[in-house]
Amino acid sequence: MKNQMLRFFAFLLFATSTYAQEAIFRSQNLISPEIEGDAVTFRFFAPQAQQVEITGDFLPSIKVESSMGTVDAPGKVLLTKDEKGVWEFRADKLAPELYSYSFLVDGLPAIDPNNPFLIRDVASVTNIFIVGGAQADLYKVQQVPHGTVAKRWYPSVGLGMERRLTVYTPPGYENSTQAYPVLYLLHGAGGDEEAWITLGRTAQIMDNLIAQGKSKPMIVVMPNGNVIQDAAPGEGSRGFYKPQFMIPQTMDGTYEANFNEIIDFVEANYRVNKEKSQRAIAGLSMGGFHTLHISRFYPNTFDYVGLFSAAIMPREDATGRVYKDIDATLQQQRDNGYQLYWIAIGKTDFLYDANQEFIKKLDTVEMPYTYVETEGGHIWRNWRIYLSQFVPQLF
Amino acid sequence: MKNQMLRFFAFLLFATSTYAQEAIFRSQNLISPEIEGDAVTFRFFAPQAQQVEITGDFLPSIKVESSMGTVDAPGKVLLTKDEKGVWEFRADKLAPELYSYSFLVDGLPAIDPNNPFLIRDVASVTNIFIVGGAQADLYKVQQVPHGTVAKRWYPSVGLGMERRLTVYTPPGYENSTQAYPVLYLLHGAGGDEEAWITLGRTAQIMDNLIAQGKSKPMIVVMPNGNVIQDAAPGEGSRGFYKPQFMIPQTMDGTYEANFNEIIDFVEANYRVNKEKSQRAIAGLSMGGFHTLHISRFYPNTFDYVGLFSAAIMPREDATGRVYKDIDATLQQQRDNGYQLYWIAIGKTDFLYDANQEFIKKLDTVEMPYTYVETEGGHIWRNWRIYLSQFVPQLF
Repeated sequence: MKNQMLRFFAFLLFATSTYAQEAIFRSQNLISPEIEGDAVTFRFFAPQAQQVEITGDFLPSIKVESSMGTVDAPGKVLLTKDEKGVWEFRADKLAPELYSYSFLVDGLPAIDPNNPFLIRDVASVTNIFIVGGAQADLYKVQQVPHGTVAKRWYPSVGLGMERRLTVYTPPGYENSTQAYPVLYLLHGAGGDEEAWITLGRTAQIMDNLIAQGKSKPMIVVMPNGNVIQDAAPGEGSRGFYKPQFMIPQTMDGTYEANFNEIIDFVEANYRVNKEKSQRAIAGLSMGGFHTLHISRFYPNTFDYVGLFSAAIMPREDATGRVYKDIDATLQQQRDNGYQLYWIAIGKTDFLYDANQEFIKKLDTVEMPYTYVETEGGHIWRNWRIYLSQFVPQLF
Repeated sequence: MKNQMLRFFAFLLFATSTYAQEAIFRSQNLISPEIEGDAVTFRFFAPQAQQVEITGDFLPSIKVESSMGTVDAPGKVLLTKDEKGVWEFRADKLAPELYSYSFLVDGLPAIDPNNPFLIRDVASVTNIFIVGGAQADLYKVQQVPHGTVAKRWYPSVGLGMERRLTVYTPPGYENSTQAYPVLYLLHGAGGDEEAWITLGRTAQIMDNLIAQGKSKPMIVVMPNGNVIQDAAPGEGSRGFYKPQFMIPQTMDGTYEANFNEIIDFVEANYRVNKEKSQRAIAGLSMGGFHTLHISRFYPNTFDYVGLFSAAIMPREDATGRVYKDIDATLQQQRDNGYQLYWIAIGKTDFLYDANQEFIKKLDTVEMPYTYVETEGGHIWRNWRIYLSQFVPQLF
């Protein structure tokens, strides 16, 4: 019997740790990343490599020249090799945050084989880790009541398909008779209905803010803003394919013109308070663009509007009905009234100037708004912060 | 405005494709895997590498000698390098299946940077792809009505924590008054509440079998069988850490003794038919062990029992109350009656002999069962097949 147990575990070892080779065993037998307070040590086994670098958003960003001008890119740093072929780098004094990183082995990207936690962003997959404390404690799974995260499909008559949504319902939703308010939370270009729940840590942020009494219990609906997709790459009927940034029809008005279907579905299928005062919409980057246009296209629908690093593109070239009469519909939205029009942008965001112009327009049409300027640029770190600042102001 | 759009997309390109380096651009600018019917071409850019191999379950397995005797391991094959530094391998005539693979670059494991679809199995992450047709069409997202997949937490008084479950509810569940039957589906050693829904393709299999009229609409509950965890690694309060095979207390009776809490939670929180005739339980490997013991420890609870490559370990060393009086409780289960006791095992499974012994024991205690013997060993390919064979026999 003992022998059978041993064979069982030996089998598992062979079956799941890929291959019984010494090199692989070593490469997968390190601790990486090793997190000690605010210091993090990264390790990578590669005795043959000429150089191993690490790059990620925990390093200061660097300026890169390109045909489009100077842009920010994540920094990188060389690891040091020991006599056993293990490359190592220790980063000190990291601020609390959810970070992502990759190795570069002789210039080629490689994930950390000792860290199975990965996030896909468009077609790139990177490892993640959290340095806890302060704001970052909102991103951790804490021992608090947890909401439910569901992947659900809604019928879109306008788009001619069933489409996938991510829905967060707060702790207690299932055993209550309460009608809840709803936040519609929109992703950026290259994202989908997975983005906010993975990169955005929405479920953890909501669980923690609700547990701390800083947020009202609410439903958060995260739709897919790419109207040619029924679901995120790999989750829909197109199967597994390489995701791209440039998806047709993301900013041509089709999404906005059909957004009412999503609201109708949510209000027919969840215990929802259908008052305007109980509806909020927010989005990052392209999702900020969608939020701007959805909230004025349905100008008496949302009492709370959040533009996170919004891609302000008035689309003077767009001919769709959604983009007609922008000033008039904004004025209509203003006249109908709302509680909060919240605009947040980082000082180094390449959309900073566009947001300043947009604020001027709001001044011109006398629309009240709250403007928040932060450090940093067009990055998920800011969008998680914006979400945790926006949500406590709702309902 | 055009210039702003260009800057926007240029930024996205820099921000998300990691780094603006020629080598990285090339390494991420290939099509891999390229699937043409039953032929699949894999490509990997590595001009400096001495050799690039690929390994995965699409290749014939090989025998590996170890201190535990000869075991099967996935095969591997060398890729061919072209003048641009792109290594390539074309596999022909692959049977329809969901496959996984990794590259080995100078002996070290690497994921395919052109394929963002990955599955974690314990601490290993591998790329996946599907060759369609036949059985594998069940694993694809088809244009059929889709059920909802929820990650939900239930309170465990016995284990002293909130614990995470994966719950599949069938298409139409939310807009029906019907009480549904429930299948409890248990993972193996090293797995968790993510295993069946990712590696097992349970949602796709259920959607497709239901759409084809081969399965009754049912709820599928996928709990976490590691009683020291509140959730899968990375999804619980322990945060991100390196998962291991050998988890304490997985086979000491604690899970079985507290399983009633899961049933109680499901029956209190879902529209469920609470008849024994409407309950099924099945599991793979360690989950087959759990299924065997849960079904006899609660001997009048399940009308359908499925043992998929079950780790039959009568645990003569176990002293917990769950493992007492095995023969007597089996006889009790037999006397109470059931519809199906289904045992499936692959001919080359290292647990084959143990399953034969168990069948003899069932004969001895005169318990009726259905025995299915298949090709192959202790692999996910078989468990997906067993699930799709078991489910149509239920309810």
